[in-house]
Amino acid sequence: MFTTTILVRFGDLDAAGIAYYPRLVNYLHAAFEDFFSGHVGRPYPEVYREGIGFPTVKVEMEFLSPVHYGDRVEIEVTVERVGRSSVQIRYEGSVGGYPVFRARNVAVVVDMRTFKPMALPQWLRERFQAATDPSAPAQP
Amino acid sequence: MFTTTILVRFGDLDAAGIAYYPRLVNYLHAAFEDFFSGHVGRPYPEVYREGIGFPTVKVEMEFLSPVHYGDRVEIEVTVERVGRSSVQIRYEGSVGGYPVFRARNVAVVVDMRTFKPMALPQWLRERFQAATDPSAPAQP
Amino acid sequence: MFTTTILVRFGDLDAAGIAYYPRLVNYLHAAFEDFFSGHVGRPYPEVYREGIGFPTVKVEMEFLSPVHYGDRVEIEVTVERVGRSSVQIRYEGSVGGYPVFRARNVAVVVDMRTFKPMALPQWLRERFQAATDPSAPAQP
Amino acid sequence: MFTTTILVRFGDLDAAGIAYYPRLVNYLHAAFEDFFSGHVGRPYPEVYREGIGFPTVKVEMEFLSPVHYGDRVEIEVTVERVGRSSVQIRYEGSVGGYPVFRARNVAVVVDMRTFKPMALPQWLRERFQAATDPSAPAQP
Repeated sequence: MFTTTILVRFGDLDAAGIAYYPRLVNYLHAAFEDFFSGHVGRPYPEVYREGIGFPTVKVEMEFLSPVHYGDRVEIEVTVERVGRSSVQIRYEGSVGGYPVFRARNVAVVVDMRTFKPMALPQWLRERFQAATDPSAPAQP
Repeated sequence: MFTTTILVRFGDLDAAGIAYYPRLVNYLHAAFEDFFSGHVGRPYPEVYREGIGFPTVKVEMEFLSPVHYGDRVEIEVTVERVGRSSVQIRYEGSVGGYPVFRARNVAVVVDMRTFKPMALPQWLRERFQAATDPSAPAQP
Repeated sequence: MFTTTILVRFGDLDAAGIAYYPRLVNYLHAAFEDFFSGHVGRPYPEVYREGIGFPTVKVEMEFLSPVHYGDRVEIEVTVERVGRSSVQIRYEGSVGGYPVFRARNVAVVVDMRTFKPMALPQWLRERFQAATDPSAPAQP
Repeated sequence: MFTTTILVRFGDLDAAGIAYYPRLVNYLHAAFEDFFSGHVGRPYPEVYREGIGFPTVKVEMEFLSPVHYGDRVEIEVTVERVGRSSVQIRYEGSVGGYPVFRARNVAVVVDMRTFKPMALPQWLRERFQAATDPSAPAQP
């Protein structure tokens, strides 16, 4: 498991003054990037530039409580499943210890030069597996 | 069922040159807005200004095929369930008849002055129910 | 001169319930795209895919009046200057005849394979020049 | 003068793999927010919630060099002018000491309950004036 924090910016808000939900979906990608620099050990932009991408094929997300301007959203990143060429990741967002969203994202590992699936390289597989939590629940 | 079309703009693209998935999530809201003007019979901005909002509490979305710059995404909007103060809506996106995403969104009906759930007004209930499809599948 | 219309979406709003100004800057690009399909005669995505891009090097924009949810912003596109490998374009936005913004954008013409400036192709030069307005004011 | 750093996220990129310019405009607002927490001494979200807003009435921005994925953009914030109910701020972005953009933003001070201009409160005026740089150039 890995944890990162994202600050809610003015540009993330909607007309109700709370974070607009597609921009909370975007937070999942930001947390994925922080997972690379903070847990995998290499910045995702570097890995991406070398030709490995992780396009999302499925997302499920529940919004439990409004997220407000200036909130620091703490996001727990747990790898739930590491396939040959896909990863399933769970994201749990909270503010001040209070849950605000939970999400599951399935991404395929893609060779960005061909946009075809590729096997997750071993060094990455090991880092993803080190972030799995055997006690993670099976359903969102 | 109601259908609308959204043009993929440059600002929707990611570094791979395809629509970035949180911005496809944003398309669901645009389709919801078009559903109001095209099916409900009143623009959503008007309804929203009168104090009725539909914040999303859950979204599930599958990305079946990349969406490209300049694509016209045809989105079918089907109301799956109309509760007392919630609605469940299915969105199926396609480009040139080829499916690109499918999604399900659950939103609560909220009095925007208090941000508390409210009963869906009868005139809206009728219009939502007129867009239900009894043959809709139970799972995404 | 060319005119297009953009509908203000929920995702364009800020916490004050009006269009957030960087998203009005994004409208300039949407208007540029519509200028291609509606005036130049070829969709910009096609031209872009063939390797011609127009990255912005300068923008100036004045916000004259708030833009509201559901507004249809009519944008007048006037080409002010066509250089060897740059274009200067003026955008004037109005809602119901009432001005809401005016902007000037300078973009360079770039070969997207090398990201180096290239001469504007003759067929494009002619279409851009056909949209110039000799009476356009010299300053924003 | 105040300096902050913003990390370029995947969601900020365009199809050319560089930061899309309206999202660099959005960086100016993020820098403005950091200026509040880091220099003014109170988070902007708090000030905003108390009813003081700073809607932009004019922005000028030059894009000097492409901004890439993973770049840490260092933004210098200099207050150029403090009026009765407006502020003019200069933003200079650089990556690794190399300039990437420079911008000037004029915002009005607004009572968010009425959306009418209001005098900048004295405590804010003092903090803004403490960030002025008498040697700042008069033109972008």
